[in-house]
Amino acid sequence: NCAVSTTTKSPVAIGNVGEIMKYGYPSLTNLKKHGDFVLSYDRRNRIPNWVFEHLTAQKVAYNDVIDRENCQFFEDNDVHVYFRSTNADYYKSGYDRGHMAAAANHRTSIETMQQTFFLSNVAPQVGAGFNRDIWCDLEKYVRKLTKKYKNLYVCTGPLYLPRQERDGKQYVKYEVIGRNHVAVPTHFFKVILCETDKGEFDVESFVIPNAAQPEKAKLNLYRFSIESIERASGLLLFDKIPREFFRNINRIK
Amino acid sequence: NCAVSTTTKSPVAIGNVGEIMKYGYPSLTNLKKHGDFVLSYDRRNRIPNWVFEHLTAQKVAYNDVIDRENCQFFEDNDVHVYFRSTNADYYKSGYDRGHMAAAANHRTSIETMQQTFFLSNVAPQVGAGFNRDIWCDLEKYVRKLTKKYKNLYVCTGPLYLPRQERDGKQYVKYEVIGRNHVAVPTHFFKVILCETDKGEFDVESFVIPNAAQPEKAKLNLYRFSIESIERASGLLLFDKIPREFFRNINRIK
Ligand SMILES: [Mg+2]
Ligand SMILES: [Mg+2]
Repeated sequence: NCAVSTTTKSPVAIGNVGEIMKYGYPSLTNLKKHGDFVLSYDRRNRIPNWVFEHLTAQKVAYNDVIDRENCQFFEDNDVHVYFRSTNADYYKSGYDRGHMAAAANHRTSIETMQQTFFLSNVAPQVGAGFNRDIWCDLEKYVRKLTKKYKNLYVCTGPLYLPRQERDGKQYVKYEVIGRNHVAVPTHFFKVILCETDKGEFDVESFVIPNAAQPEKAKLNLYRFSIESIERASGLLLFDKIPREFFRNINRIK
Repeated sequence: NCAVSTTTKSPVAIGNVGEIMKYGYPSLTNLKKHGDFVLSYDRRNRIPNWVFEHLTAQKVAYNDVIDRENCQFFEDNDVHVYFRSTNADYYKSGYDRGHMAAAANHRTSIETMQQTFFLSNVAPQVGAGFNRDIWCDLEKYVRKLTKKYKNLYVCTGPLYLPRQERDGKQYVKYEVIGRNHVAVPTHFFKVILCETDKGEFDVESFVIPNAAQPEKAKLNLYRFSIESIERASGLLLFDKIPREFFRNINRIK
């Protein structure tokens, strides 16, 4: 458990799913609300299909009472035991338990941060060079965007991208770990809808391979079109907003 | 189109989803009714997650007016264009367009059979030694069971099973075909709930690799536990019926 004993009242109402999901659900599969985020669980791959967060500068503000240091990963007992990932699945797998909704985005209360540690919010990520580096940079970049925009709506999830092999054919190939065969995605995506004070929308979208990236690789290298992410993931992103309403897409007008 | 010009009135009411799905939905993802079957569509893999049929001797009775000979495969325009498989995807792929709900199970009207030819009811199957042989034998076996039981409830779908490679790790690997990356499953499953006149239940369940099987292979070789299928597929099968209500499972008391 998050070992903080002060009681912090959460400003996040329980009924804020409508606010988080304001601009459309990517899919309606096995939906679940934890703390201040909403996720769709992939029962076959034992990791999320997607995780959705509504972030503001206030929500992500640093608060030294809320610390991830003593948080622990939990199995999610709401998931049927056949489809539930466990800490044992990750143990000695060589992969980090990678948060989809980042812990540091959820500092409004201990409980809210704690709920990012449910394994239903987690997927196997390469540690050095990915989770602890470029992916972490991306998460920090998202938090920085909250200073520039009134509201961020962030969708994060795995991809299983095909590759051409020597026989000229395309194959999807990914490792599965542990007794429950938890999928190790080939890539992860993050799509950020940024809403200004005036109700204008900018969008930024990234895809990063689940592998150690060069130390000095810049995030800009990993910008990816939303349509490609939608096609590959089987999801529709922010489909309540007509595309012509987007002012900038990946900083391009 | 099914080139039969006589109008055959279907005995299947449009509102019979409740009857087909009487003993539980395996999942609630992208549900769709076609003709006399219900399916869950996998938008990432462009094939069904599962297809459900309710079969009786009367429904599958041979009717020479209803003939698949001139039926053609259709793209399913109800599926978003990003996630829709096309005939072009299958063309020259080396794979058959394999029906999940078999055409020959749906002889009550031309329209009903025709709807089994929607590509949303189709997955890439190896032709010789699988679709045209052992899988066809399994479909015939199911129809034969309708003579013995009052009602059959049949769930059919793909599996993506991991294999251990030389590095000692487990990998899921499957080909994807065409511009839309239609997944070629490693295996297919079929689970048959058989209800007697007296309301007793027997269950039979099969998993067959999507590959040419030995010519004389017997169906009995491919019996598989329901729990294994559930764990691998991420689905729950006939979960409205407590397991102790099953009289025989794969012919074993
Ligand atoms: Mg992380
Ligand atoms: Mg067939």
